[in-house]
Amino acid sequence: MPSKTPEGEARGWIVPIGGAEDKDNGAKILRRFFELCGGKGAGIAVIPTASRLNETGDRYEQLFSEMGAGSVTVLDFDTRRDAHERNRVARIEQASGIFITGGNQLRLSTILGGTPVAQAIRTCNAHGVPVGGTSAGAGILSEHMIAGGDSDTSTPHADGVRLAPGLGLTNRFVIDQHFRQRDRLGRLLSALAYNPFAIGLGVDEDTAAFIGPDNTVEVEGSGAVTVVDAEGLQYSSMAQVGGHSPVCMLGVQVHILTAGATFNLDTRKASAGSLAPTKN
Amino acid sequence: MPSKTPEGEARGWIVPIGGAEDKDNGAKILRRFFELCGGKGAGIAVIPTASRLNETGDRYEQLFSEMGAGSVTVLDFDTRRDAHERNRVARIEQASGIFITGGNQLRLSTILGGTPVAQAIRTCNAHGVPVGGTSAGAGILSEHMIAGGDSDTSTPHADGVRLAPGLGLTNRFVIDQHFRQRDRLGRLLSALAYNPFAIGLGVDEDTAAFIGPDNTVEVEGSGAVTVVDAEGLQYSSMAQVGGHSPVCMLGVQVHILTAGATFNLDTRKASAGSLAPTKN
Repeated sequence: MPSKTPEGEARGWIVPIGGAEDKDNGAKILRRFFELCGGKGAGIAVIPTASRLNETGDRYEQLFSEMGAGSVTVLDFDTRRDAHERNRVARIEQASGIFITGGNQLRLSTILGGTPVAQAIRTCNAHGVPVGGTSAGAGILSEHMIAGGDSDTSTPHADGVRLAPGLGLTNRFVIDQHFRQRDRLGRLLSALAYNPFAIGLGVDEDTAAFIGPDNTVEVEGSGAVTVVDAEGLQYSSMAQVGGHSPVCMLGVQVHILTAGATFNLDTRKASAGSLAPTKN
Repeated sequence: MPSKTPEGEARGWIVPIGGAEDKDNGAKILRRFFELCGGKGAGIAVIPTASRLNETGDRYEQLFSEMGAGSVTVLDFDTRRDAHERNRVARIEQASGIFITGGNQLRLSTILGGTPVAQAIRTCNAHGVPVGGTSAGAGILSEHMIAGGDSDTSTPHADGVRLAPGLGLTNRFVIDQHFRQRDRLGRLLSALAYNPFAIGLGVDEDTAAFIGPDNTVEVEGSGAVTVVDAEGLQYSSMAQVGGHSPVCMLGVQVHILTAGATFNLDTRKASAGSLAPTKN
């Protein structure tokens, strides 16, 4: 379960990015995240643990510094023991925004899962600190994470997805990243075929879902966020099929949101938002 | 508009197949089509015009003959003039089933469109003769045909699809074939973003939609038929976007049908059909 937000306080924004976000032409998504963290003078903690490249953390450090951050701390964790160090936990607790880079989400879940660092991220978010992540860093944010499965298929399959526990900032949605680019609708549908409770958010590259304290999803970036809502599911054959058999799913609602459109995770209502035509 | 079915008569089955249907291991789909055409003694007309391979027609001739057809006539059309020949039109009119092979659907539309052969196929179907087609031969069956567009994307784009008039046996649906294998949800959604009237049927390879006289879609084969129903569409940004921009679409209903499940094109209701669990 997500950490409880104390009465009178608002949960922080949760910002999954689909990967490959623009960094050179205005960095619109990262800049909006930075502003949510307080803008000029913000203290950002960057967690590059998913990546095996040394330069990953440095790149974001440079970007947020150029935007005017008061401090950027790159906190890498190579072992689970690292994620128990008081000193590092304190630096998470002091941040006004937390950003998790891409790479392999299983490095994040195996190294951070169940540690004081994971707990600190959850607590910070529950107290209003924005937490963003790109690619693997997006997938890890919610309670149920897609650990692997099919790419390149729009049809759900019995063995089409492997789920694992994530950081658990919320259990309202399941994220899939590089969505359109890697054709992952099938595996996102497979995840919902097990249990339609959560809402699937398929986030394209260079696109982000900005999820506010009121659970409204706002879209930013050049692609789309595909919202898959299986609440009205009439039927799923997931319990009866095995192997690589396709899964029958009846009554799935899909919304393709582009920048400006919104979706509320509580009411499950989509809106054209600023895209709606207005008469002049 | 489709040819009018005379009172007291039922329209023939319409059978779009997603391509690459099994021919060696029971040929389940082709055999069911053959039975609908009358089974033993049936007279099948095969139209291999979409294909540039000489052996395409022969292969189906052999298959249907082995199943016990009374006659199989392979009718190729190289020019529009061929499609005006009385003799060939008569052979269509005498068939108890008509099958259109795969290849390039623009060969079918440019050579047969508006000719007496196209009219004969429509009239036969309106009088009860089953018409089936695979791949390009599936795409051509309905009033609005997907002539080209994006593959490998689940997101609709402003320029994501090109539509052209097809044979027009019905205007109730738009077919897309090789659906999962070529990741064509994006282009099918693009087609519906223009006008949500029609229902999108995305047919996987080795899978067929058997559409009965009562407009119930029954699924046969190893894959799925993805039904995309945009009747409840709240919003489409298609009128406002251009180029390769993604299209915002809110409120699309999706059903993944596997063999046994059904969808009625009139009531727009999906059913688990024979997949529904029964208590013993």
